[in-house]
Amino acid sequence: MSSTAGQVIRCKAAVAWEAGKPLVMEEVEVAPPQAMEVRLKILFTSLCHTDVYFWEAKGQTPLFPRIFGHEAGGIVESVGEGVTDLKPGDHVLPVFTGECKECRHCKSEESNMCDLLRINTDRGVMLNDGKSRFSIRGQPIYHFVGTSTFSEYTVVHVGCVAKINPAAPLDKVCVLSCGISTGLGATLNVAKPNKGSSVAIFGLGAVGLAAAEGARIAGASRIIGVDLNSNRFDEAKKFGVTEFVNPKDHNKPVQEVIAEMTNGGVDRSVECTGSINAMISAFECVHDGWGVAVLVGVPNKDDSFKTHPMNFLNERTLKGTFFGNYKPRSDLPSVVEKYMNKELELEKFITHEVPFSEINKAFEYMLSGAGLRCIIRMDA
Amino acid sequence: MSSTAGQVIRCKAAVAWEAGKPLVMEEVEVAPPQAMEVRLKILFTSLCHTDVYFWEAKGQTPLFPRIFGHEAGGIVESVGEGVTDLKPGDHVLPVFTGECKECRHCKSEESNMCDLLRINTDRGVMLNDGKSRFSIRGQPIYHFVGTSTFSEYTVVHVGCVAKINPAAPLDKVCVLSCGISTGLGATLNVAKPNKGSSVAIFGLGAVGLAAAEGARIAGASRIIGVDLNSNRFDEAKKFGVTEFVNPKDHNKPVQEVIAEMTNGGVDRSVECTGSINAMISAFECVHDGWGVAVLVGVPNKDDSFKTHPMNFLNERTLKGTFFGNYKPRSDLPSVVEKYMNKELELEKFITHEVPFSEINKAFEYMLSGAGLRCIIRMDA
Repeated sequence: MSSTAGQVIRCKAAVAWEAGKPLVMEEVEVAPPQAMEVRLKILFTSLCHTDVYFWEAKGQTPLFPRIFGHEAGGIVESVGEGVTDLKPGDHVLPVFTGECKECRHCKSEESNMCDLLRINTDRGVMLNDGKSRFSIRGQPIYHFVGTSTFSEYTVVHVGCVAKINPAAPLDKVCVLSCGISTGLGATLNVAKPNKGSSVAIFGLGAVGLAAAEGARIAGASRIIGVDLNSNRFDEAKKFGVTEFVNPKDHNKPVQEVIAEMTNGGVDRSVECTGSINAMISAFECVHDGWGVAVLVGVPNKDDSFKTHPMNFLNERTLKGTFFGNYKPRSDLPSVVEKYMNKELELEKFITHEVPFSEINKAFEYMLSGAGLRCIIRMDA
Repeated sequence: MSSTAGQVIRCKAAVAWEAGKPLVMEEVEVAPPQAMEVRLKILFTSLCHTDVYFWEAKGQTPLFPRIFGHEAGGIVESVGEGVTDLKPGDHVLPVFTGECKECRHCKSEESNMCDLLRINTDRGVMLNDGKSRFSIRGQPIYHFVGTSTFSEYTVVHVGCVAKINPAAPLDKVCVLSCGISTGLGATLNVAKPNKGSSVAIFGLGAVGLAAAEGARIAGASRIIGVDLNSNRFDEAKKFGVTEFVNPKDHNKPVQEVIAEMTNGGVDRSVECTGSINAMISAFECVHDGWGVAVLVGVPNKDDSFKTHPMNFLNERTLKGTFFGNYKPRSDLPSVVEKYMNKELELEKFITHEVPFSEINKAFEYMLSGAGLRCIIRMDA
């Protein structure tokens, strides 16, 4: 048992006091974990678009002050009542969505959308008592998606914590907490391309490149990257992308361009932009008879997916996925093993690194579109 | 070798001289089969909506005079050059779509949409020479979907003929040529419900009831029939349907009614009407996390399938199917065996029977919505 167990911990956290304003380093108090909660010491965290989206809070009901952060790796500091799966010292990845292991979704082999712990971006408190575990001089600071990893210590529901191989370097595998697993799983678990097949990837950001990495691992022979920014094409080659299409370079719909390149369509496509037009193109560019399109990107509230129903009747399949269909606790440990076995390459996703004190630089990199993932070292 | 091999056969056929006008019994000349063709003696045929649709020819480029008919059972009379899989005397089901066994679709385990022999409703001639094998006093009579079974003898491409167990009663298994296999396969091959699961079937005509029969065979515990005609509900019980919903009885969308009945949605749905609204409802009524909706019904040319993309991202799947994903030559023999093993019940689909001379009665039954399948006995 650590000496801090049961005590309030005072530590550094990067607090977002207002939408869109730089985070401020503060000393926060982190309460001990309650029933079915664990307190984690975060060692590395990275920044994902979702953090930035809710930090900008455009068109949302703002929830501030808040501690963002949800891609991270850490070590269990102490556990609350009823926690038997984890103990202090365990190496873990906190995850923005959970696995209670009790609900219909957790009991289904087909779903990872846990009824109890499914992502909730509007809630800024813990499930147990509806309160925050963070405070500054008595003022509660809201949580973010149950993880709030921009803090040296955080409290997370046990169902949102994946215990991993302690030999895995947390400064690398922390990126598996969210985006990289989302893209990788979309291809490996949902699109499931056969060896030698063709795959189109829409959007060559971190999630799309992780989807391409999945296609490379599956042995696809043609991986066609689609992006409006041709500057992304060079980097994409490192992820197995073999051909590139910029829809702006063509005066016909990109689905027609891809159909011409592939004698009728690709075998699989994965959409990682969230643009409704890209979703429709990603569906319509798969081959009839066997094509499968997988949607990953999150659309706008008012979007409508439209296509002619004959596109389905000609034996195309359209599926969506959430977190790459991985169940966080059951499946993430094996994704970490894929990295340990050198099957999955993570280094190429990590383009920047900053000390915690310079976390706002990570926001600047992302806002300027520079690089893929910026690792934030909590001890520096 | 039969004594008629290589000879023109003169026999009875029911000819459609004009759109929507009663068929006329004529003596036709049926030319011998050419390369890769077989000539069949049809013993039993039945009437399917597709025959009626192209006979009415509304909004179509009419192709007359024509011999309709595509659900049938018969015996090989003679074979053309290059045919090695079939010989005179074989019991067969002619099929409106084919399997060349050479193209990418035939070589794919996932597709049955043969490039060479895929259904073509606009073509009224044989592939080999672009000519008809039927004539009356020298005037060619057009074929229909390569089968034209409303004739005592017909010529069919070998790729559109399934050789079946000669012990199977052709007056029953003839209905497996089209509609029944389409519905059955949509459930068994595409929706694939687990034992104990819930399945919604939209449209309780012959195809929808065959989809329900598939759900019954798969061991679904709840089979919810959806139809605008409540009179269909009683008959549907014979096909395993356990509950009924008439959308007209509710003042909210039927997908919401079904979600309330099933704690969030059915596990699988199968759409067998062709109505675009039913397609959207069938998709939106499946459960998030694992729900699969399958489209079977043929839509109108100008229809647009519309839904919010979040319905996909919440891990629902939408697929279409053609002929229940059965490959005609490879797979139909095993469907016949399902009937022979008493796993599949066909008798309940057969509600009427007429002699060939009264084939127009079969059209009347279908147009009035009476019954499911009417068997036409060619020898009577």
